[in-house]
Amino acid sequence: MIIIGVMGGGSASQESIECAYELGRLIASEGWVLLNGGRAAGIMEASAKGAREAGGLTVGVLPDMDTSQTSDYIDIPILTGMNAARNYINVLSSQVVVACPGGAGTLSEIALAMKSKRPVICMGWDPGPVVAAMAPQGMFFLAATPDEIIGMIKDLLK
Amino acid sequence: MIIIGVMGGGSASQESIECAYELGRLIASEGWVLLNGGRAAGIMEASAKGAREAGGLTVGVLPDMDTSQTSDYIDIPILTGMNAARNYINVLSSQVVVACPGGAGTLSEIALAMKSKRPVICMGWDPGPVVAAMAPQGMFFLAATPDEIIGMIKDLLK
Amino acid sequence: MIIIGVMGGGSASQESIECAYELGRLIASEGWVLLNGGRAAGIMEASAKGAREAGGLTVGVLPDMDTSQTSDYIDIPILTGMNAARNYINVLSSQVVVACPGGAGTLSEIALAMKSKRPVICMGWDPGPVVAAMAPQGMFFLAATPDEIIGMIKDLLK
Amino acid sequence: MIIIGVMGGGSASQESIECAYELGRLIASEGWVLLNGGRAAGIMEASAKGAREAGGLTVGVLPDMDTSQTSDYIDIPILTGMNAARNYINVLSSQVVVACPGGAGTLSEIALAMKSKRPVICMGWDPGPVVAAMAPQGMFFLAATPDEIIGMIKDLLK
Repeated sequence: MIIIGVMGGGSASQESIECAYELGRLIASEGWVLLNGGRAAGIMEASAKGAREAGGLTVGVLPDMDTSQTSDYIDIPILTGMNAARNYINVLSSQVVVACPGGAGTLSEIALAMKSKRPVICMGWDPGPVVAAMAPQGMFFLAATPDEIIGMIKDLLK
Repeated sequence: MIIIGVMGGGSASQESIECAYELGRLIASEGWVLLNGGRAAGIMEASAKGAREAGGLTVGVLPDMDTSQTSDYIDIPILTGMNAARNYINVLSSQVVVACPGGAGTLSEIALAMKSKRPVICMGWDPGPVVAAMAPQGMFFLAATPDEIIGMIKDLLK
Repeated sequence: MIIIGVMGGGSASQESIECAYELGRLIASEGWVLLNGGRAAGIMEASAKGAREAGGLTVGVLPDMDTSQTSDYIDIPILTGMNAARNYINVLSSQVVVACPGGAGTLSEIALAMKSKRPVICMGWDPGPVVAAMAPQGMFFLAATPDEIIGMIKDLLK
Repeated sequence: MIIIGVMGGGSASQESIECAYELGRLIASEGWVLLNGGRAAGIMEASAKGAREAGGLTVGVLPDMDTSQTSDYIDIPILTGMNAARNYINVLSSQVVVACPGGAGTLSEIALAMKSKRPVICMGWDPGPVVAAMAPQGMFFLAATPDEIIGMIKDLLK
């Protein structure tokens, strides 16, 4: 199975939430598994909901020791008990990492993905040229819409 | 979804391999997800093969940073890059942990499961009374056969 | 520097507490660094107190994200935020692991030490023959007193 | 004890290496413990060498399971076996994090420090305004020289 990671903030703007929902929907429509941080909040909840409603499978890699904060749209909760160290697992386990707008947690996922040679696509924001220059050649992209991202992922998976 | 963890050695006797295969098959037949350590060896390979061949979904939580050692029977490889620290994730993510014969790695999973209050069923071996006494009340069981284990899991999930 | 790990329960009998204190004192007297789980409780507090009062250096590898539960006798708190996954770090970082009486957490440290080929000495208790048989050759010992353990460690460090 | 983290690349320019050495020297002169990634390379080796030569204590939190790649200037090697997940431990364990020039690994440490509310000082480079904006209020600084950083740390520790 192909696993696509969708990272992003636990709180997010309405526009980002809608984009994440649509991205989850499209990922599931391609037959890919959606992986995210698993919490019932922000980009995590929205992308899982989109994927689930399109009939897809959803995996959440959680910082927690139990499922009390897990989104209802997550099929497979991976409980790490490792707080933000789980961000490393998120990106290692994803063939492509999409970073929706977020804060320092999302930035850590971008950085860990680059370090681990996973391709990163930023959706709807740009962390800036210093960050972009840290990616391995051909491993960092900016995109505006979920549709555009699906096309990029298809190219990357070839 | 209900996730059942099956732990056990990367090398194992033919009898243990056959038991693990059958256990995987029965877990999948119940509609449960099988979770194990994900490697292409021993109890991990056998239980994943059994589950897959019965049409089930398989999750492997790997010590590795890539899938070069992942069993072909694993649908969802969770790459931790954390070596034996991934044993903690294995048990936290399982509603019930079945421990097939194994070595120190399997014993660490039994111990971490007890610490995390996950029920443990040892299949075909007994780590001894000192270990058993460390489990929370009603959380440690011995069993001889895969069939018996399925019955125990059903009781535990009630 | 030589680092000796002392593991054991967050709650412990008065006798075990006194043994752990004496062991910490003797470890420091040899010029070795004491490493433990860092919490202000049980064997952790007692062994750190013993080492500190004999002028030694103490390292605590904590499950926590902050120092609110750290023993005052710990000089270097390593904050992992990883809950029981930190048990793996405890044993990897110790040249010899002493396991005082404890529960499932301590058993997980014994098992992870064996898996990582670190020598284990159980002080004042015996986890039983099945556990002992999981250790690599010449890597598992039982001892009654702190004095006896110091002698064993000296032999192991040769 | 006060623990100051110094992060930065395993390969670095001669200028950065010299700055990291000097920073390590000054940290030790203040009586603070130096914590870094522990490897015998780049900023890690240089900062540990500086601290050691000024009589300080050095702690290295390593990605490895053994000390084969540990700098000779590290007094206390903490072996995590967790690859880049150890970056989280580095920043949690530091009261202040100094980020020397580096790559994606260093960026992940900046991000994880911000997420964990540890103050970050970038020495001799600037990750850009989007990254800076992710820090909690009063928790992100740019500095040119080791001397300037020591002053900033003193202010932060007040």
